[in-house]
Amino acid sequence: MTLPLKDRFDLPEGMIYLDGNSLGPLPKGVGAAVQSVIAKEWGAHLIKGWNDCDWMDQPARVGTRVGRLIGAPAGSVVMGDTLSIKVFQAVSAALALRPDRRVILSDSGNFPSDLYMAEGLIALKDAGYELRIVEPEAVADAIDREVAVVMLTEVDYRTGRMHDMAAVTDTAQNAGAVMVWDLAHSAGAVEVDLTASGCEMAVGCTYKYLNGGPGAPAFIYVRPDLVDTVTPFLSGWLGHAAPFAFDRSYTPGKGIERMRVGTPPVLQLAALEQAMTVWDGVTMAEVRAASLILSERFIAEVEARCSQLTLLSPRDAARRGSQVSFGFDNGYAAMQALIARGVIGDFRAPNVMRFGFTPLYLDVGDVIAAVDTLQDVLDRRLWDKPEYRAVGRVT
Amino acid sequence: MTLPLKDRFDLPEGMIYLDGNSLGPLPKGVGAAVQSVIAKEWGAHLIKGWNDCDWMDQPARVGTRVGRLIGAPAGSVVMGDTLSIKVFQAVSAALALRPDRRVILSDSGNFPSDLYMAEGLIALKDAGYELRIVEPEAVADAIDREVAVVMLTEVDYRTGRMHDMAAVTDTAQNAGAVMVWDLAHSAGAVEVDLTASGCEMAVGCTYKYLNGGPGAPAFIYVRPDLVDTVTPFLSGWLGHAAPFAFDRSYTPGKGIERMRVGTPPVLQLAALEQAMTVWDGVTMAEVRAASLILSERFIAEVEARCSQLTLLSPRDAARRGSQVSFGFDNGYAAMQALIARGVIGDFRAPNVMRFGFTPLYLDVGDVIAAVDTLQDVLDRRLWDKPEYRAVGRVT
Repeated sequence: MTLPLKDRFDLPEGMIYLDGNSLGPLPKGVGAAVQSVIAKEWGAHLIKGWNDCDWMDQPARVGTRVGRLIGAPAGSVVMGDTLSIKVFQAVSAALALRPDRRVILSDSGNFPSDLYMAEGLIALKDAGYELRIVEPEAVADAIDREVAVVMLTEVDYRTGRMHDMAAVTDTAQNAGAVMVWDLAHSAGAVEVDLTASGCEMAVGCTYKYLNGGPGAPAFIYVRPDLVDTVTPFLSGWLGHAAPFAFDRSYTPGKGIERMRVGTPPVLQLAALEQAMTVWDGVTMAEVRAASLILSERFIAEVEARCSQLTLLSPRDAARRGSQVSFGFDNGYAAMQALIARGVIGDFRAPNVMRFGFTPLYLDVGDVIAAVDTLQDVLDRRLWDKPEYRAVGRVT
Repeated sequence: MTLPLKDRFDLPEGMIYLDGNSLGPLPKGVGAAVQSVIAKEWGAHLIKGWNDCDWMDQPARVGTRVGRLIGAPAGSVVMGDTLSIKVFQAVSAALALRPDRRVILSDSGNFPSDLYMAEGLIALKDAGYELRIVEPEAVADAIDREVAVVMLTEVDYRTGRMHDMAAVTDTAQNAGAVMVWDLAHSAGAVEVDLTASGCEMAVGCTYKYLNGGPGAPAFIYVRPDLVDTVTPFLSGWLGHAAPFAFDRSYTPGKGIERMRVGTPPVLQLAALEQAMTVWDGVTMAEVRAASLILSERFIAEVEARCSQLTLLSPRDAARRGSQVSFGFDNGYAAMQALIARGVIGDFRAPNVMRFGFTPLYLDVGDVIAAVDTLQDVLDRRLWDKPEYRAVGRVT
């Protein structure tokens, strides 16, 4: 497949979108697909839609499509809830696999919500658990025999720094810990091989590189040999072995189905299922190769033309995900000026200008045009204008 | 307002829909509203939609609309997740309010998922908690000083039997227990006054009587005087006091916002927000009055004409929600025969034929026509036909 595949997206005219790491753009056909579910399925079948229209199978069916992009076999991934809930579900199940240990190890590069969910889980268990947070570089050394679960986001949301999934998983497992990966900035961005890594569990979201739309559901993977033994503490009826038997007590379902909780978000899943068609015929190897061409070029152009900025991402492409971040003290205002000119990146405190590279809908011409605009903003000190300095909400 | 308001819905021609207690029908305008969010908001604003299109405020904004129907003040209800997750969130927070007690009291009329979530919570806490399940009639007597939380669904999903919310809440609170109500079969069906009841927390779903569509998000209410002290153990970033500060540790947000967890399902919320407009100008008092006219008439007609069926719902209208259930040993097949003839109710094991009455889109003529069909199915013993006896999936 020759990338990009811009014609698979409805991209706004005149916008260079470097924020697919926050929310992917609208794939073609999503509107029609959702419309069809609303009018022809819900509107016409009503309650019968659960059977007639295969809504009940949607979480596993879409999960298998996501699985292909992250090296997970069919039937090992299921969709549902939000990433924060799936983190809670994975880590709580993981702790139960190591009842004699009390430490959840994570790093300062993890997305805060993952840390918050672990905090909440520890407070809820109220049994001497500890969330130990180290610097990303110190993770391997910090994995000792106290650690029950290593919980990491593979690609750092601020800098794009990427863990070595296979190596960290090995280290964790050699120390007897359970490995849980958050693939929020990995799925659809970099090559992931969950099976090869041997990790026990993984979770991720689908509104970033998978273009599922705002509020698209999360996914969870459990290693197939383990799935029938993990305990889903968020034991909702749709994870029950026989949800419609309405038993009074919980019996977990077979396979990954047990990680379902409540009623699936049919409309969001319909949007996502259509969005997944943009990956038809695409391999993650070619996406990754194209992504590195874009990000390497971006770094080279920025460093050649925008000396005000300092690279915060790893220079070694192999240690970097699909985004590039530069530090700049006036980064917030500079980003607002860029956005006003149609180059959409985002800003993370305190000084991070973040740019995501998504080769499904970006090419080298876009990269060069984006740097042209960036250079202009910097050279003309547009970040000094009051309208860009006013701090609004930052999503 | 004169009910019904059939023109506010897109109802299939020739169908009498008595299953709004499972999944409400499609309100007019939902397709267009969702389409607009997809094409004009997501498609055009992309990441900027979070600010430009007020997606971030949607959970509380829609929550306030739901709150009006359940006697909850503006700002005390927020949308998100699924009902099962919200049950977990409410009960876990409630337990923390009574740290010296170890019993969650519920009843056999509760929806199984609520019981399963409590089971999972107890297993997760692993600290001697107990889920005590009694018969619905025995709840009041079972509330003693061991009970930390009373967790009940107001209206029984099988029979429509309704608890006396005010009285049970009083009994619970007099014994020092925290009261959590599940309003799945109440919100939009019966008059609920959360404020008057004084209950600490309530949860519910929006795909039944609130017509939010398959997978519509749940809601949670916390009594305003308590909300700033409850602990959200599902402590996701959007419940944080400053989500975009990306602090490393969790600080709960102000008010009901702390009960948010992850990224809200924007498309589902857009559908729900539009669906809530069917309640414009409608009071729950008139809905309840109309609902009782329908259900009383249904009971009278069935009992006069269908002697094969036995009323399972309370005969006293004041003790019954907005549904009526009849017992019939061949109920599964009889319901399939009814459905094949365009009268949509549903079946719950072992013998429950369930009919929901929703005066927004049903009138007495529908009730009589439904009973005509039911009588025909029974008199002609159509439930004996093999095509109706084959057991498929029951949703």
